[in-house]
Amino acid sequence: MSKLPLVGGTLFIGIDGGGTKCRASIMTEDMQLLGTGLGGPANPFQGIQQAKESILTAAELALSDAGLPVSAMAELIAGAGLAGVNVPSVYAAVSSWDHPFKRMFLTTDLHIACLGAHFSDEGAVIICGTGSCGYSVVKEQPLFIGGHGFPIGDKGSGAWMGLVAIQAVLLAADGLGPQTALSDSIGDFLQARGLMIVDKLCGARQSDYARLANFVMDAADDGDAVAVKIVKDGAAYMSGIAGKLWATNPGRMAMIGGLAPRLIPWMDKDMVDHMSPVLYQPEFGAVYYAKQALNSAKKTAIN
Amino acid sequence: MSKLPLVGGTLFIGIDGGGTKCRASIMTEDMQLLGTGLGGPANPFQGIQQAKESILTAAELALSDAGLPVSAMAELIAGAGLAGVNVPSVYAAVSSWDHPFKRMFLTTDLHIACLGAHFSDEGAVIICGTGSCGYSVVKEQPLFIGGHGFPIGDKGSGAWMGLVAIQAVLLAADGLGPQTALSDSIGDFLQARGLMIVDKLCGARQSDYARLANFVMDAADDGDAVAVKIVKDGAAYMSGIAGKLWATNPGRMAMIGGLAPRLIPWMDKDMVDHMSPVLYQPEFGAVYYAKQALNSAKKTAIN
Repeated sequence: MSKLPLVGGTLFIGIDGGGTKCRASIMTEDMQLLGTGLGGPANPFQGIQQAKESILTAAELALSDAGLPVSAMAELIAGAGLAGVNVPSVYAAVSSWDHPFKRMFLTTDLHIACLGAHFSDEGAVIICGTGSCGYSVVKEQPLFIGGHGFPIGDKGSGAWMGLVAIQAVLLAADGLGPQTALSDSIGDFLQARGLMIVDKLCGARQSDYARLANFVMDAADDGDAVAVKIVKDGAAYMSGIAGKLWATNPGRMAMIGGLAPRLIPWMDKDMVDHMSPVLYQPEFGAVYYAKQALNSAKKTAIN
Repeated sequence: MSKLPLVGGTLFIGIDGGGTKCRASIMTEDMQLLGTGLGGPANPFQGIQQAKESILTAAELALSDAGLPVSAMAELIAGAGLAGVNVPSVYAAVSSWDHPFKRMFLTTDLHIACLGAHFSDEGAVIICGTGSCGYSVVKEQPLFIGGHGFPIGDKGSGAWMGLVAIQAVLLAADGLGPQTALSDSIGDFLQARGLMIVDKLCGARQSDYARLANFVMDAADDGDAVAVKIVKDGAAYMSGIAGKLWATNPGRMAMIGGLAPRLIPWMDKDMVDHMSPVLYQPEFGAVYYAKQALNSAKKTAIN
């Protein structure tokens, strides 16, 4: 039986779209979780059509998980935090989408991560997963650092780490750079050696490079000099972001993303000491954002 | 009137396909140049359909330049040297092309550049343009170094230099890297500053980044510390390639490509001293290759 009769009031869907996956959660007005769904890559900077499809997939699966019919999509108030929409042209492209929700409030993945992590209007977050970036919001003033996308930005991220690792493996293969354990570990993973690695990476995307990051972390933990240099370089950059964010007095600061737990031990101790645990996942922040935006719209309509 | 009646014997077309353009030259058996044509990007690793179209465009323009009808295409013996075909899957994809020539002999852009530069079966070349790579052939043994494509390889190239410059400009904009004159010069060129540069580079390709290389060279020549570091890093890599090539005793070694004249002053003096001038352009090397391959095929047929 459907859970629908049990649910009263407005239903929300919180959407967290990143470079490798899209997570959607359906919640009640009092933020009771009804169902979640997972879709593919949803960074519109990397591909707007795929982002839309991933959002729809995640939303449909979340409805199904909640025991709701697909037709309920049209009743949902969506809060969507997507990577890449800090770029104006990308924001405009997503905003013009004829989406299937009742309403959709769009913001960045950083913003919803921050709202969720601290369950507060103020705070700072550093994301280190497929991509990397920093964000703080204090007295309603947001500060973005990094997050410029792959390959021009996102230093310290999984994709950056994978790309730099491949560059090092190819330099080693040509005898123009130091030998590294990455040649074997990444070579085994790609089932290729030397020049054949190039063949395997023909058309590789950000998420393909990000998959190699754990090999770099493993090799660094084992003391491989090339990997240690890559990880230290990435960690120093993330520490730099943390320092800029902490200077805005955000009160709380948290680090999120698949690579965060492995990179934190390599970061400046001063910055690590400022880190607080994450309170809620980004999808909760997305619903928090949609609720705020909806109330603000209602107030505007009343006044 | 057509020049066709003046021409006797077999006609050849030499094709040099790279990341930004494709040059085709029609020649007689005794390598008398009849006409040349220029097409767009023709690196099949970056896009096989575009490479084919660029080759066709260049070939048609070369026929027209030679005063020959398009129908003469089917009589041409083509020698094609294309970037990226050192990758086996790319070689296979181009080889299976239902091309419009009488015959086509396919090899790498490096091989035809080397044959042309030295007009000899032995020699070494370093290419530094949109991409970068090294090649030598001694006693019929080829040696490839680098040339793994953008963004995983091609260090020291124009595209690499442009990408690293953009990364530096964005680090400076975020206050996480040193200030550089590149922020203004590249910013002026892109008509953007800070985050807006990201917007301008959405979907940028190898050739778009390569266009930024001259700003890096300009800034380095003016002593900008960030640009000097980038150029020295690239030049050291190219010197490393030169050293590996010279160790094969190629007799002659030459440096080719749009960025070569500007990068040479930054390279190791030892290596610069080994450089010889280029004798002929790569298209001549492509025809040289096609003639050799055709003779070899005829010999095989006779024996």
